[in-house]
Amino acid sequence: MRDHILVINPNSTASVTRAIDDAVAPLRIPGGPGIACLTLDEGPPGVECQSDADSVILPLCRVIGEQEADAAAFVIACLSDPGLFSAREATQKPVLGIAECGILTALTLGHRFGVISILARSVPRHLRYIAAMGVNQRLAGDLPIGLGIAELADGRATLGRLVDVGRRLREQHGADVLVMGCAGMARHRDNLEEAVQIPVVEPTQAAVTMAIGRVRLGWGQGLSRH
Amino acid sequence: MRDHILVINPNSTASVTRAIDDAVAPLRIPGGPGIACLTLDEGPPGVECQSDADSVILPLCRVIGEQEADAAAFVIACLSDPGLFSAREATQKPVLGIAECGILTALTLGHRFGVISILARSVPRHLRYIAAMGVNQRLAGDLPIGLGIAELADGRATLGRLVDVGRRLREQHGADVLVMGCAGMARHRDNLEEAVQIPVVEPTQAAVTMAIGRVRLGWGQGLSRH
Amino acid sequence: MRDHILVINPNSTASVTRAIDDAVAPLRIPGGPGIACLTLDEGPPGVECQSDADSVILPLCRVIGEQEADAAAFVIACLSDPGLFSAREATQKPVLGIAECGILTALTLGHRFGVISILARSVPRHLRYIAAMGVNQRLAGDLPIGLGIAELADGRATLGRLVDVGRRLREQHGADVLVMGCAGMARHRDNLEEAVQIPVVEPTQAAVTMAIGRVRLGWGQGLSRH
Amino acid sequence: MRDHILVINPNSTASVTRAIDDAVAPLRIPGGPGIACLTLDEGPPGVECQSDADSVILPLCRVIGEQEADAAAFVIACLSDPGLFSAREATQKPVLGIAECGILTALTLGHRFGVISILARSVPRHLRYIAAMGVNQRLAGDLPIGLGIAELADGRATLGRLVDVGRRLREQHGADVLVMGCAGMARHRDNLEEAVQIPVVEPTQAAVTMAIGRVRLGWGQGLSRH
Amino acid sequence: MRDHILVINPNSTASVTRAIDDAVAPLRIPGGPGIACLTLDEGPPGVECQSDADSVILPLCRVIGEQEADAAAFVIACLSDPGLFSAREATQKPVLGIAECGILTALTLGHRFGVISILARSVPRHLRYIAAMGVNQRLAGDLPIGLGIAELADGRATLGRLVDVGRRLREQHGADVLVMGCAGMARHRDNLEEAVQIPVVEPTQAAVTMAIGRVRLGWGQGLSRH
Amino acid sequence: MRDHILVINPNSTASVTRAIDDAVAPLRIPGGPGIACLTLDEGPPGVECQSDADSVILPLCRVIGEQEADAAAFVIACLSDPGLFSAREATQKPVLGIAECGILTALTLGHRFGVISILARSVPRHLRYIAAMGVNQRLAGDLPIGLGIAELADGRATLGRLVDVGRRLREQHGADVLVMGCAGMARHRDNLEEAVQIPVVEPTQAAVTMAIGRVRLGWGQGLSRH
Repeated sequence: MRDHILVINPNSTASVTRAIDDAVAPLRIPGGPGIACLTLDEGPPGVECQSDADSVILPLCRVIGEQEADAAAFVIACLSDPGLFSAREATQKPVLGIAECGILTALTLGHRFGVISILARSVPRHLRYIAAMGVNQRLAGDLPIGLGIAELADGRATLGRLVDVGRRLREQHGADVLVMGCAGMARHRDNLEEAVQIPVVEPTQAAVTMAIGRVRLGWGQGLSRH
Repeated sequence: MRDHILVINPNSTASVTRAIDDAVAPLRIPGGPGIACLTLDEGPPGVECQSDADSVILPLCRVIGEQEADAAAFVIACLSDPGLFSAREATQKPVLGIAECGILTALTLGHRFGVISILARSVPRHLRYIAAMGVNQRLAGDLPIGLGIAELADGRATLGRLVDVGRRLREQHGADVLVMGCAGMARHRDNLEEAVQIPVVEPTQAAVTMAIGRVRLGWGQGLSRH
Repeated sequence: MRDHILVINPNSTASVTRAIDDAVAPLRIPGGPGIACLTLDEGPPGVECQSDADSVILPLCRVIGEQEADAAAFVIACLSDPGLFSAREATQKPVLGIAECGILTALTLGHRFGVISILARSVPRHLRYIAAMGVNQRLAGDLPIGLGIAELADGRATLGRLVDVGRRLREQHGADVLVMGCAGMARHRDNLEEAVQIPVVEPTQAAVTMAIGRVRLGWGQGLSRH
Repeated sequence: MRDHILVINPNSTASVTRAIDDAVAPLRIPGGPGIACLTLDEGPPGVECQSDADSVILPLCRVIGEQEADAAAFVIACLSDPGLFSAREATQKPVLGIAECGILTALTLGHRFGVISILARSVPRHLRYIAAMGVNQRLAGDLPIGLGIAELADGRATLGRLVDVGRRLREQHGADVLVMGCAGMARHRDNLEEAVQIPVVEPTQAAVTMAIGRVRLGWGQGLSRH
Repeated sequence: MRDHILVINPNSTASVTRAIDDAVAPLRIPGGPGIACLTLDEGPPGVECQSDADSVILPLCRVIGEQEADAAAFVIACLSDPGLFSAREATQKPVLGIAECGILTALTLGHRFGVISILARSVPRHLRYIAAMGVNQRLAGDLPIGLGIAELADGRATLGRLVDVGRRLREQHGADVLVMGCAGMARHRDNLEEAVQIPVVEPTQAAVTMAIGRVRLGWGQGLSRH
Repeated sequence: MRDHILVINPNSTASVTRAIDDAVAPLRIPGGPGIACLTLDEGPPGVECQSDADSVILPLCRVIGEQEADAAAFVIACLSDPGLFSAREATQKPVLGIAECGILTALTLGHRFGVISILARSVPRHLRYIAAMGVNQRLAGDLPIGLGIAELADGRATLGRLVDVGRRLREQHGADVLVMGCAGMARHRDNLEEAVQIPVVEPTQAAVTMAIGRVRLGWGQGLSRH
C-alpha cells in the first residue's frame, strides 16, 4: 500500500492496535487514502507514565523516517501525543497526534470537554499538554478510571468505569462532550455515548479524519523545511 | 444527491460559491460523501458587518431544516460562523462552521495563528468569537486587507494584499500559520502559502474535512435532543 | 416622551416587561432621563434557546431604528444580549446589553460571580458569551433553576429555586456575588439577596444605570460611524 | 449635603479635584444624589509610584469612616484604586474605584481597551491590577505620556501627548476604546476623543455613574458584614 | 550581624516570629548569609483582613529603610505580601514576598496548587493576588481553616483543620501540592505533608531560599533606580 | 563528593558545562551543598530543535538513576527542560529544570518577562512550555539571536546580539526582566544587564538556588512514590 495514512500505536500491545484498526474502519473510503495501523514493537505495553511516553519518541521517529516514502501522513495514536513535535521534524509528511485532534474535534461538539484517563498519574501530563495547546479554558475536567492498559482487556469492567467517570464529568464538572483518554478504549465509544447521552470523541478517529483532509489537500507542500 | 455534505455560502454572491466549490473539489472522494455547495439567495452580497452576519441566520436555518432529510451534514461557509448554534438546534445532522474548523485545524499546523480579514470592522467580531472559542492564547493577530467582498473579484490586487498582510502577521506578530478570513479568498491559498512560506488554512476545506469524518463515523446518532 | 432610555424586552411576555418596569423604577430620577419599557411583540414568549435569541435580532434592530429619533439610549433586556452588536450598527445612540452590564457590575461587588440561569440549555450560550467578554476568570459557575419563562410566573416556586441554586453557587462554587440570569426574575432580587447573604445583581437595573451615565455624558457623540 | 456621593481625590492637588468636579457636573441630576468632591490633604501631590498609592490608604479610610453617616456612596478617584478593598471594610456604604469602573465601562464601548498612563512606572502597577480584575484578555496596551501630575497643568502639552499615545494605542496596539489613566486628565476627554476617533472613558465619570445606580437601588443593604 | 537576610513578620505576634525563625533554621548555612527575623511591633496581632494588610505597609517600609545599610535582602513574611511593591521602591536591596515565592516554588512541585488560608475573608484577597501574578490557571483552590491568628496557638486543633482542608483540596479540587497560607502555620509543615501525602510548601522557607540566591548572585546591582 | 547538587548539561559541549560551572560558583557556600556540573556525553552538541531535546531524555534519566545515591538534587541545564517529568519519576531526589526555575524567578523581578532564544525554531517550543507552565500572561515576548550553540563561542558577537534582542524586548514588547534562553549564554549575564538596564536571570543560577533550598529543607521526603 502506498500513500496511505500510517497510524502508529506507540505501545507494544497488539490488541490495542487491532482495536484502533477497527475504530478507523469507517474512514476507509473507496478511492480515498488507505489506512494502515502499526504496533511499535519497541514501545512499552502501555503508555502509563511520563517515562513511558518519552521512551517511545526515538523508535517512533525512526519508524516515521523509514516509512516516509510510502506513507502520505502519520498519526500517533496515544493520548500523550509522544514525539509529535520531533516527528514533524523527521518528515515532510503531515503528522497528527490523537490528543490534539481529539480535543480540537471535541470543541466542535460541546462547550466544555471532559477527558477520561486510564490512571490518576496520567492527569497532570494531560493538563500540561492541554495548557500548552491553549485550550484549558474549555476543559471541564480530566478524571481517571484507575485501570492500566492491561486491565482494559476486561471490556465489561472497563465500560462500567468509563460510564461512571463520564457521568461524573457531565454532572459534577459540567462536561457536555467527552474525549476518550486512551486509544485502547476505542471499542466502547458507542456504548459510552449511549450511556452518558453526550457526544464522545474517539480520538484516533478524529485524527485520521483530519489526516484524510491533509492528504487530499496537500497543504504545506511548497514549504521549505527550516 | 443524497447523504451529501451541504456547504452553504450565506452570502448571495454566486462567484464566491463557485470558488468554494473549486476549493472543496479535492475532498470529493469517489466512495465518500458527496459535497454540494449552495448560495443563500436571501443573504447579503457579502457578510461584512455584524448585521450582515445576523441577517442570514433565519434563512440559513430554514434551508437547513428543508434539506435535513437529504443532507448528511452541513457546513456554514462564512468566517463569522453565523447561526452555527441555532442551526445545531434546527437539525439532528452535524453542522460545522468554517471559522471554528479553520482555526482549530490551524492549531495543528503552527503554534500561533494569524487571521487575514477582509475589513477592519470584521476584526472585533472575530476577536469575540475566538475568545468565545477559548483559543485566544494561540492568536498572533487578526489584520484586514481592507477589501470588501465585491473587491475580492480583482484577483491580482487581492493576492497582493493577502501576501502583504500575511507577511506582517508572520514577521511582526509572530504567526506561524494563517487562516484565510473569508470563503471568497479560497483560490489564493496556494499562492499565498508559497509567498509567505508558512502553512495557510482555507477554512472551508478544513470544515468539509471534519464533516467527512462526522458523516462516516455517525457520532452522536444515539443522542436525544434536549 | 423624548430623550428617554428605551428598555426593550425581546420576548413577547408582557408580564416580564411589567416586572422590568418595576425593577427600573428607582432609577427614574425627576430631572434625569425617562425610562420606557417595551415588549417586542415579534419575540418568542421567552428566550430559552439559541434560535429564540437569534430570532429576535432583526425585529429588535428594526424597533431601534424606528425609535432612534426619540430615544437617547437603548437597553436590550435579555441575558443573551441578542443582537447587541447589530443594534450598535443600527443606531448612533448608545445600546447596552443587560448581560454585559449585569456581569461587569457584579465584578464591582465580589470577586467570583455566579449566574442563575433559567434552563440548562442556556448555560453553554452564557459561557460562550462570558468567554467572549473575556471575564471567564471571574466566573464561579452558571447553574440553571430548570424553569422556563412561563413557569417563572409562579413566584413562590421560582424564589425557592433561586435560593437553592444561589446557595449552591456560594457554597460549592465559591461565588460571592450573583447575577440573575433572566429579566423575568427581577422581582425576587431583594428576597434572594436576603436569603443568600451575598450581593445580587438584577441586570436590567445595572444596564439602565450605565445608560443614564451615557445619556448624561454624551460620550462618543463626535465619532463618525465606520 | 446628605446622602451624596463623595468623590475623594487621594492626591493633595486641589486643581485636580476641581477638574474632577467639572467632569462629574453632568451627572448632577435634579432629584438625584448630590456629588461632592474632596481633596485628601494628607495625600501626595500626585500618585505616581506604588508607595504614593499605598501612603493614602489609611487617611482615605479615615475620611470614609468619618463621612459614613453623611455620604451615600464613595468614589476613590485615582487610577490605582488605592485602598479600595480596605475602604469596603471601613463602611457599609458602596465604595467604587475609578480604575475598575473606568475599565469595566470601556468594555461596553469597544473590544480592546488602551490605557493612557502618566508615567512609565505606573504601567506595571496597572498591569497587576488589570490582571487581578481578570480582564487582561481585553487589554490592548498601557502606554505612558511621560508627564507627572505637576506637568499635567500645562494643558496644551498634555493634550498633545494624550493624542500621540492614543493614536499609537489605536494603530499599533489595536485599541478601539481608551481609558484615561489619571483623574487629572479629565478636561481633555472631549478633545482626545475627537482627535483619535474612538470612544474615550473618563473614569471618574464612569465610577460616579455606577455610584448613582448603587445609591438609588440600595443593593446589599440587607447584608450583614462579615 | 551584617549582610543578613532580614525576615519581617508584619504582625506583632512574637510567637509567630519565633515559629518563622525555627522554620528558616535549616537555611542558615555556615558560610552563607545570616537570617534574622523581626516582629513588626506596629502591626496588628494578625493580618486577617485587607485593612490589616494595608495598615502595615508604611511601618514595614520604614523598617526596611532603616535597615537597608545592614541587610542584604528582605523577606516580607505574610501571605498577602503587604507592601511588596512599595518596599521595592524603598530599597535597592532585594525584597521578596512569601506569597509570590511560596506559590512560584509550589509550581515546581506539582501541577495544581492549593492554598490553605486562615479565614474565609482571606480568600478573595489571595485570589486577586494570584490573578495579578498571572498563575491562576495553576490554582486548584483556596480554602480556609476558619481559625484566626490567635487560634493558631492551639497546635493540635490547627493541625487537624489543616489536614482536613488539605485533603479536600487534594481530593475534591485536584491539588497535587499545597501552600500554607499563613506564616503562623509553619511548624505543622512536616506533619501536614505526612498526612496528605502531597508536597507542602512553607512559604517563608521558599522565600528565604530565593533570597539566598539573590544575595549570593548580586543580580541587578548595576541597575539605576527609576 | 556526596550529597551535592548535580547540574547536568544535556549537550555534549564541554565549554558550555564550564560556563555553567563558573556561573554557579557564587552558590558554592561553605557548609552548604556542593555543586557538581556534568556534561552528558551522549547529548548532541547543542539542543537546537525538538528532536535534540527529546534525544537526551533517556541518557539523562539513566545518569540520574546512576547518580541517585550520591546526589542530593539534580538540575537539568537546558532551557527546554528536556526530560524533567521523566526524571522526576526516575528518582526520589528533587529534580529542577532551568526553564521553570529561571522563568519563575523572573516573575519576582519584573512584571513581564522576555526570553532571548538562540534560534527562531526554539521559540514555539518555549511558547508551548511557557503555556504548559500557565505563566504565558506574564510573557512579553521570546525572540531569537539567530546563533546556534557553536556560534555562541564567539563571545563578542554573542553579546552584541543579546543586547540588541534584549533592547527590542524591553522597548517594543514591554519586557522589564529578561531570561537567558540557553545555559551557554551564562557568562554574558552581567554585561547584558548593564547594557539593557533591566534585571537578567541566568536560569542555571536560578535553578541551583532553588535546589539549595530543597536540599536543606528536605521537603517531600516522607512521600511514597505513586
